[in-house]
Amino acid sequence: MAKKGSKTRAAKKTGGDLCLRELLRVPGGRPVDLAAHDARKTPAGPRDKQAGLAALTELAAPLADLQERLWAASSAGDRRRVLLVLQGMDTSGKGGTVKHVIGLFNPSGCRVRAFKAPTPKEQGHPFLWRIKKALPHAGELGIFDRSHYEDVLVARVRSLAPPAEIERRYDAINRFEKSLTDDGVTVVKCFLHISYGEQRDRLLKRLDRPDKRWKFDVADIDDRALWPVYQQAYETALERCSTPHAPWYLVPADRKWYRNWAVSRLLLEHLSELDPRYPEADFDVAQARRRLLEQ
Amino acid sequence: MAKKGSKTRAAKKTGGDLCLRELLRVPGGRPVDLAAHDARKTPAGPRDKQAGLAALTELAAPLADLQERLWAASSAGDRRRVLLVLQGMDTSGKGGTVKHVIGLFNPSGCRVRAFKAPTPKEQGHPFLWRIKKALPHAGELGIFDRSHYEDVLVARVRSLAPPAEIERRYDAINRFEKSLTDDGVTVVKCFLHISYGEQRDRLLKRLDRPDKRWKFDVADIDDRALWPVYQQAYETALERCSTPHAPWYLVPADRKWYRNWAVSRLLLEHLSELDPRYPEADFDVAQARRRLLEQ
Repeated sequence: MAKKGSKTRAAKKTGGDLCLRELLRVPGGRPVDLAAHDARKTPAGPRDKQAGLAALTELAAPLADLQERLWAASSAGDRRRVLLVLQGMDTSGKGGTVKHVIGLFNPSGCRVRAFKAPTPKEQGHPFLWRIKKALPHAGELGIFDRSHYEDVLVARVRSLAPPAEIERRYDAINRFEKSLTDDGVTVVKCFLHISYGEQRDRLLKRLDRPDKRWKFDVADIDDRALWPVYQQAYETALERCSTPHAPWYLVPADRKWYRNWAVSRLLLEHLSELDPRYPEADFDVAQARRRLLEQ
Repeated sequence: MAKKGSKTRAAKKTGGDLCLRELLRVPGGRPVDLAAHDARKTPAGPRDKQAGLAALTELAAPLADLQERLWAASSAGDRRRVLLVLQGMDTSGKGGTVKHVIGLFNPSGCRVRAFKAPTPKEQGHPFLWRIKKALPHAGELGIFDRSHYEDVLVARVRSLAPPAEIERRYDAINRFEKSLTDDGVTVVKCFLHISYGEQRDRLLKRLDRPDKRWKFDVADIDDRALWPVYQQAYETALERCSTPHAPWYLVPADRKWYRNWAVSRLLLEHLSELDPRYPEADFDVAQARRRLLEQ
């Protein structure tokens, strides 16, 4: 009984029996209305900033433990790995999520890649070419700050490719992600959902603070003018590419502490399900011990 | 006066006016006797574990601030970057340093690379080929867990290349590192110095703990039998490749807390000297503000 009680306490500390995946998962194949989703809501878990920061701190140890086990398992041939895909409008907090969430992990096992506008060389290849080169290796946690989804988002909004080509890409993405999951990659796609008002506040803060101004790009204002078109492009991407093997999670992101907790919690749920194990010794431990002590 | 006092307090918090670089720098061109260096000593800074952990915590904020400024500066064309090279015998704590020291930084700006035995493809290229592909980009902190030095260490001990070729490599490394520093790379090379007894204890711990056993490799015992030959190879590398532009630092590493503090402090001193600055706005801030508020 004591053991059961302690397990329950441990579960409560990291979010209890809560399944955030179910709560935030975007049902694929159905129209998505982003305006109907309150970006300030806290659908489960901590309800205020203090509780949110505390809950994030509580997740640090179990996340680090799971990551180490994933890494250890890879040393014995386990090829499983995790890919976190972060998408969202400018200032939605992709970079902040990497800093505060991925900062909880051991850097040795993380492969972070930020995708910017494709270079001329990248443009000479199919759109998934640069993505495939940046995938996590066995045992690693890969993190994409923007991703192949840009090729159906900005590419659609800015007409960077013919409509028929954009159209083909949704299916290409679904096939690609299916091939990843078939190959042992757990794909965790988070759309960081912020409101129009919150973006204005964050852009103004970038302008007003000399230590934030370098993050400001005048082009962000032009993009902001296209807010409704971007939201539509996101809605289409979420509808068409939230699949059973690689669902999208819609993360309310107006509150940074909630966003950080939610992404961490989603990673925890996925890593817990993988349940990676430290490998057994494939050598004679007693003999190795003797040899060491003789030296 | 108040300001001066506060500056002094801030300086004390992060190690005062101490210059660890001078204390730990290996004078190049002179024979090195590793046995004469006590791996348990704490030549400056914190003197016990509690103070060491506290001192490391104090370094986290200034390190993160300097890293962000380096990254911000790169957005305005500053090409400077830092490369931390970690070398040391098995169990000396290269991985632990990445976890505890690099874990203090924003993962977005870190490029960690662990070098293992070269693959057949890598063997088909000059030894610096794979190194050059892993260098940090502008604004980044690169971390090498092992490095091109393996090509004059294990390669020498295990006769993986002809003696004349090994001999040529010292100069090739010095030329290569000079080209890096000329190109804006600050190279920080840390030799994590542990004692023969400490290595035994750490290897035994790996054997005894099921969650550490996966790190154990029976080949480590064979390498340990070659301890004196490895120490000689390190002595030669330190003597020949501790140059004015890229000196080696000899970090006492039997105490993990001291090792972590010392490497962090060395990074702080180098980053402080670079003194990267947030770039000035290259656009009309007031106009951008107006446009935003009109939206």
